[in-house]
This record gives sequence, structure tokens and C-alpha cells, in this order.
Amino acid sequence: MTPDQLYAQIQARRSYLCVGLDTDPSRLPAGVGVLDFNKAIIDATAPYCVAFKPNLAFYEAMGLEGWRILGQTVDYLRSHHPEQFLIADAKRGDIGNTAKKYAETFFRSFDFDAVTLSPYMGTETVLPFLDYPGKYAIVVALSSNSSAADFQWSVQEDKPLYRNVMERCMALGGPEKVMFVVGATKAALLQDIRSFCPDHFLLVPGVGAQGGSAEEVIAHGANARGGLLINSSRGILYASGGPDFAEKAAQAAAATARF
Amino acid sequence: MTPDQLYAQIQARRSYLCVGLDTDPSRLPAGVGVLDFNKAIIDATAPYCVAFKPNLAFYEAMGLEGWRILGQTVDYLRSHHPEQFLIADAKRGDIGNTAKKYAETFFRSFDFDAVTLSPYMGTETVLPFLDYPGKYAIVVALSSNSSAADFQWSVQEDKPLYRNVMERCMALGGPEKVMFVVGATKAALLQDIRSFCPDHFLLVPGVGAQGGSAEEVIAHGANARGGLLINSSRGILYASGGPDFAEKAAQAAAATARF
Repeated sequence: MTPDQLYAQIQARRSYLCVGLDTDPSRLPAGVGVLDFNKAIIDATAPYCVAFKPNLAFYEAMGLEGWRILGQTVDYLRSHHPEQFLIADAKRGDIGNTAKKYAETFFRSFDFDAVTLSPYMGTETVLPFLDYPGKYAIVVALSSNSSAADFQWSVQEDKPLYRNVMERCMALGGPEKVMFVVGATKAALLQDIRSFCPDHFLLVPGVGAQGGSAEEVIAHGANARGGLLINSSRGILYASGGPDFAEKAAQAAAATARF
Repeated sequence: MTPDQLYAQIQARRSYLCVGLDTDPSRLPAGVGVLDFNKAIIDATAPYCVAFKPNLAFYEAMGLEGWRILGQTVDYLRSHHPEQFLIADAKRGDIGNTAKKYAETFFRSFDFDAVTLSPYMGTETVLPFLDYPGKYAIVVALSSNSSAADFQWSVQEDKPLYRNVMERCMALGGPEKVMFVVGATKAALLQDIRSFCPDHFLLVPGVGAQGGSAEEVIAHGANARGGLLINSSRGILYASGGPDFAEKAAQAAAATARF
């Protein structure tokens, strides 16, 4: 998918929403299996979102069955909702020959459009993911968790680490190859980031259950071409724990990150 | 496994060697499958090493079959070589509720002793792995790849990032819970690291195919209790591409990181 195609979807739905499929078997409504839950959530929320993002940890924790369900979920999305942008939230990051294998996994074995990457080991961890036209490396720059500040604000050449990560990765690939995870929900920080990274898509976690405001993100993070994906996971998946879970998820999706 | 038990194995074999099971189907001898290759390598090299480290990327790239083979490899090691220390080289790193799921995967679904972690998102990414007695978080501090310097030398409070990572994680857990990946093969750097981290085990990649000297690592990285695991992958797995691959792997293992 090209940035133009993704932008067109955002405009068509008037939505920046990415639904995080962090599906936890222990939190499902009684009698509903993981795959059926995913399908129901997908069908209910697809009219209000532009992307889905399975979190690999939740599938790996189910063992072989989890990998099977992940594949079935991706296949279901591709066949029933081909307009959706599919992100593997995997936070992978390793040396070149290993990164190449991870790229094969997510872009060939699975047909994801993008995969999240952790940049600690340097630009080498990102490069193999840029060899797939129409696919994206989404590099974690600034995360939204409480310990994000432990290391991401370290300084090199007078710039915080997250900015160096972004500038180095922007030099590797344009908006048609690279996106960034930026867990910034405050106006000043978003404006600063847009000052040096105007055109790349930002995947923004931290709204909903994590407390950030999607409205503020849209007001200060959107650029002339859209350029935003705003993730919500638990606030949508578990909007209701009862048999009306899909209906409540649709209502939550319809009210999140839209314009 | 306790640090004392691991240290006793190191002394018994006079070896710091960890054999990296980065098994690539495209590099196997003719007619040999991945699981049979792993079993042959394991049986041939176990007398000369103290740890095995499957690299998850290589198994994930094989799809469902890869996860099955990974489980079978771990089961084989547990039943045939129970004295070996088993590391999942996964470089995982995510927020708390996700990290908890990864810990379940590697410590419960699989019975690994340790898992490698990427610290970019902060100490929160490490904590859930410390809840398993006898298991270890192995945090990547300084990697051995060419782009390691891109970010790992960023400065915070007058210290390079890799040192801040180590000091913060040492505060989370002692040598019985936390180890570090330190891709340092030069004397001065190893001595400096041992000045502030005397007791934690260091997992050292970068010898063999990556060019570092195991002798120099042992001379300057070992402490009074051992405290080292020195990884070699390709130099052992692919010592021969012919039917004598296991024999050549044993010879390579016997000549690597021993004392």
C-alpha cells in the first residue's frame, strides 16, 4: 500500500484509528474463542478504522495455536477487508542477517504491510525491511510507557535519542518506506517532532486506556497529508465483556481518532 | 539454574562456549532437515559448551513448522542434555503488559532458562522476566554489529547509553536474575565494563565469524566466578557443508572459548 492509498482510506473514513488486536484469551466473553473474537471485532470496527495491529506477544503466548490464529486473522483481514493496513506489532530488532529473517517472516510468510522495530542495535536492524516495495518499517522512536524516559532522552550531538533515531531512519527511507512509533500526546512535543519530521506517518499509541487524548494528537500531529495512525487496543477490544462486545467495540471505534 | 550451577558447568567443561543455533534451512548439508541438523549439532558440541542459544528469527521465518521445530529442539536439549543452559535469542522489548506475555512464552510455553531483551523502551520491558526464579533476563547493552555505535554511545548523566542500561538493570536484579549482552572483544572496553559490573554474567557475541578473539574476551571479561558466556553460531554450525558437518562442528566447538 502506498502512502497515497493509506491517506485516501483515512479521508474516506475520516478516521486515523488503528485497532490493536492485543487479544488476551483470559479477557474474552464467555464461550468466545480467540479467532472468532478477532473476526467479530474486525467486522464491527472496520468501518471506523484504517488499520489493524496484532500484538505478536499475545499470539506467541498461546504457542503453536497462537501462530495459527495469527495467520488466520491476517488471512481473514486480507480476504474480507482488503482496504485495511496491517501492522505486525513485533518490536523486532537484531543484526542484519537476523533482521533479514524477521523481514521474511512478516512480509512473506505473513502478508503484513508493516512491522514495528526496536532501533537499539542501530540502523542495520531496519535496512532489510526496506527491500520490500509497498511495505513499511515502523521504528519505535518515542514510546508511551512509564519507563520510556529511562533511555529515549539520552543525548547525542545535542539531540535526544528518539530524535537521532528518527533522523537516521529518515535518511534510510522516505515516507513510502519508514514510519515511526511516537507515543506523544502533548501538543508541544508533537509540534517539535513535526518540525523535523513533517512527512512520515506517525503511529501513536497511548490514547484510550493509556490516558492520552486523540483530539490533541490529531490537532498537532496530523500534517497536510494525514500522516497519522492512532492506536487503541484495550479500550476497543474490551469495551464490553458481555455478548454485546462487538457492538460496544464498534461504538468505541466510531468515537476514537475520527475527524 | 543458579549462577553457581552454571559456573560449575563452566569449570567442569573448561568452556565458556554458547552455541548459537541460527539454523538456516538454505545452508544445511544435502538431505538433512532442520531438526535432525540441530540434534546432530547439539550432540556433537555439548561436551565442549555450556549453553545453546536458538535465534528465534530463524525459526519464525519457517512459519508454524519453525515453531514446532523450536519446541522439539528445546525438548531434545532438556531430555538429552539437562545440564545445558538454554537461551532464547529473541531480543524482545515492549511495555509491561506485553512483556509479561513474552515472559510466559519463553519461560512457560517453552522451558528456556533465559531470554535476550532489547532495552529501548526502558526498565519496564525487563521487569516481568524477573518474576521467574532460576530464569534470567539477558539485556542487550552493547551489541557487536557495525551499527551498534549509532545509538548505544548516546550520553545521559555523563555516561554512555549502554552503561546506563546496565546500571539501571543491575538495580533491578542481581547476577541470579539479570545478565547482559556485551559485544566487546577489546581489552580496554571489557576492563571498563567489569569496573562497574563485576559480578553479572556477560553474554559475548562477535567472536568467530564476526571477527573477535575469544582469548581476549576471557582474559579481560572473566571474573572470579566465571561470569562469561561466549557465543559462536555460524563458525560452528557451518564448519563444514558436507556429511561431516557434526564432526567439524565438534572440532570447532572444542577450539572455541575454552580454557
